[in-house]
Amino acid sequence: MDIETPAALIDETRMAANIARLQKRMTELGVRLRPHVKTSKCIEVARRQQEAGARGITVSTLKEAEQFFAAGFADILYAVCISPDKLDRALALCRQGCALTLLVDSVAAAQAVVAKGHPFEVMIEIDSDGHRSGVQPEDAVLIEIGRVLHEGGAKLKGVLTHAGSSYDLNTPEALRQLAEQERHLSVRAAERLRAAGLPCPEVSVGSTPTALSAQSLDGVTEVRAGVYVFFDLVMANVGVCTPENVALSVLTTVIGHQPEKGWVIVDAGWMAMSRDRGTQRQKIDYGYGIVCDASGRAIEGLLVGAANQEHGIVSRRDGAADGSLIDRFPIGTKLRVLPNHACATGAQYPDYHLVTAAGATEVWPRFHGW
Amino acid sequence: MDIETPAALIDETRMAANIARLQKRMTELGVRLRPHVKTSKCIEVARRQQEAGARGITVSTLKEAEQFFAAGFADILYAVCISPDKLDRALALCRQGCALTLLVDSVAAAQAVVAKGHPFEVMIEIDSDGHRSGVQPEDAVLIEIGRVLHEGGAKLKGVLTHAGSSYDLNTPEALRQLAEQERHLSVRAAERLRAAGLPCPEVSVGSTPTALSAQSLDGVTEVRAGVYVFFDLVMANVGVCTPENVALSVLTTVIGHQPEKGWVIVDAGWMAMSRDRGTQRQKIDYGYGIVCDASGRAIEGLLVGAANQEHGIVSRRDGAADGSLIDRFPIGTKLRVLPNHACATGAQYPDYHLVTAAGATEVWPRFHGW
Repeated sequence: MDIETPAALIDETRMAANIARLQKRMTELGVRLRPHVKTSKCIEVARRQQEAGARGITVSTLKEAEQFFAAGFADILYAVCISPDKLDRALALCRQGCALTLLVDSVAAAQAVVAKGHPFEVMIEIDSDGHRSGVQPEDAVLIEIGRVLHEGGAKLKGVLTHAGSSYDLNTPEALRQLAEQERHLSVRAAERLRAAGLPCPEVSVGSTPTALSAQSLDGVTEVRAGVYVFFDLVMANVGVCTPENVALSVLTTVIGHQPEKGWVIVDAGWMAMSRDRGTQRQKIDYGYGIVCDASGRAIEGLLVGAANQEHGIVSRRDGAADGSLIDRFPIGTKLRVLPNHACATGAQYPDYHLVTAAGATEVWPRFHGW
Repeated sequence: MDIETPAALIDETRMAANIARLQKRMTELGVRLRPHVKTSKCIEVARRQQEAGARGITVSTLKEAEQFFAAGFADILYAVCISPDKLDRALALCRQGCALTLLVDSVAAAQAVVAKGHPFEVMIEIDSDGHRSGVQPEDAVLIEIGRVLHEGGAKLKGVLTHAGSSYDLNTPEALRQLAEQERHLSVRAAERLRAAGLPCPEVSVGSTPTALSAQSLDGVTEVRAGVYVFFDLVMANVGVCTPENVALSVLTTVIGHQPEKGWVIVDAGWMAMSRDRGTQRQKIDYGYGIVCDASGRAIEGLLVGAANQEHGIVSRRDGAADGSLIDRFPIGTKLRVLPNHACATGAQYPDYHLVTAAGATEVWPRFHGW
């Protein structure tokens, strides 16, 4: 493979299977899938998701909204509570024709939104698992925010929740329970708004683990998920994929050895893998990633066990100093590394290299920053 | 401060003091300072270092070499052992007039270098602390590599070491000892090469902690250091700076609250701070960073304790749920966060905002990728 290392590779076959898997599930459960493009920040990846049946996208920054809108994506949900000083930038997108939906979880933010005098489409964030943001579904403030928006001239579009604590689980039963909790509490919040005479057409839920675990999505209109498009080792530990499903890998080159220690030094350090050590607290700690051969087949028992900025140290997972690695992986050998967290690893690269089943490659740009 | 958040700020006054501090020390010890620009990847930052007396730069990637050469930096040391397939790219730089020095730590890499038929300037990496790469100073392979280079037509420029294990220390005495070990072992390797009749004019050592701790640099010709230009919380724990010296911070905006938990939600998540949790294993764990007011003054007892991709959770370091934070930091409040690791945090941004003592700002681009 004639690609300078380190490089971020997308295995097209695996990605297509990942996209098809969640899309099929969502179609069966009767909901729209609105993929979170914060994972890839790549127009081409998002196009594949739309072609498979996804409708609209979810973004985590206004830069994502602007970049995707410029590429023809008009239905965009900005799923982070907006800070008042970002409203002008959001308004500029709306005025260009973008169907942008904003998110709030406080009266103060709702007031700031309506103060702009533009009929923004807005959702209210619900806290369904104590994980981060959102209002409690039974809290009086939910209705108060709804009234501020509706009476202030905004279009109250619905409620949204993200059960991000799903990343901390690792059994199908616990995941099913959390998915049901995410569904139940967001539907309950929607019912409260409607009972108060407020509009609430949409109920948006999701995280990759709950999206893949939900048994029913009654009352839900759309599901958001991001990392499923690539998957990663954190998701493998959660139990919603296997390492063989991981579509993103880092191509690297052997640049040195420490024979006594059984270390193989590669040019994928933490800058190439990201500093994400998300598997550290999970059932299997994969260090900075699982080492595979150049074709993507995992090499039993080998990890990137440690990393500096531009150096990765490949060694045996069991810590044994294996001198035979030096002969097996001479200087110049190409390897691939499966990452802990696809969102973090992808963010280190200006572009991806798509690798087709036939071995051809294509460069797909991605962006970074805010 | 009218800057969209999150944003990476450089405090000009602090940076100037950091630059002056190490430069003064190196001048007193009679060695050249060759700053490692992998920390900033920013032309303007490197210019400040040169203006203060630094000579040449150190890079960790060929992209850094190309970008800095294009901006007029001609004396460049690529301080990662070169993989053979990167030699053509290195050669292209040399042919454009770049005084590029390469690094090797194996016979195989040395052979690949001379096989190109170009009189590359090359250094040999020495392992002075068992940390990562390099040959043992007493190993016969050192002389063998030297001969392959010298007899093959390369210009054997000297030896280089990086005592990166200095990041794991936290007492002045241990740092002084490691600095002396770094000096002693690299000088010893140089003496062995010279005794074997090989040229070895340069002895290059360095890491920020050892550079600031060395009592003598006899026999050393140049010192490399990177993170000293900004410093960070890892370096504060190592003991070579205080949080008040940290010149890089992330400007962020309050976007929400969880009153019962005493959480203030900000728009600096791990994408803005990086996933680097380098203080986790140190004497003080700073979470994802120390929270400061908008002017950069630390707010006693507040950390970014947890982070998702675009959400940071500000809370008390002692874990107490402090409801008063909600009133102190309403939605829209600007805060700054000091990072664990400046190299990793900077890498998340397309540019820095330089903040002068007078409060004016200037945008300084930085680059990423390989």
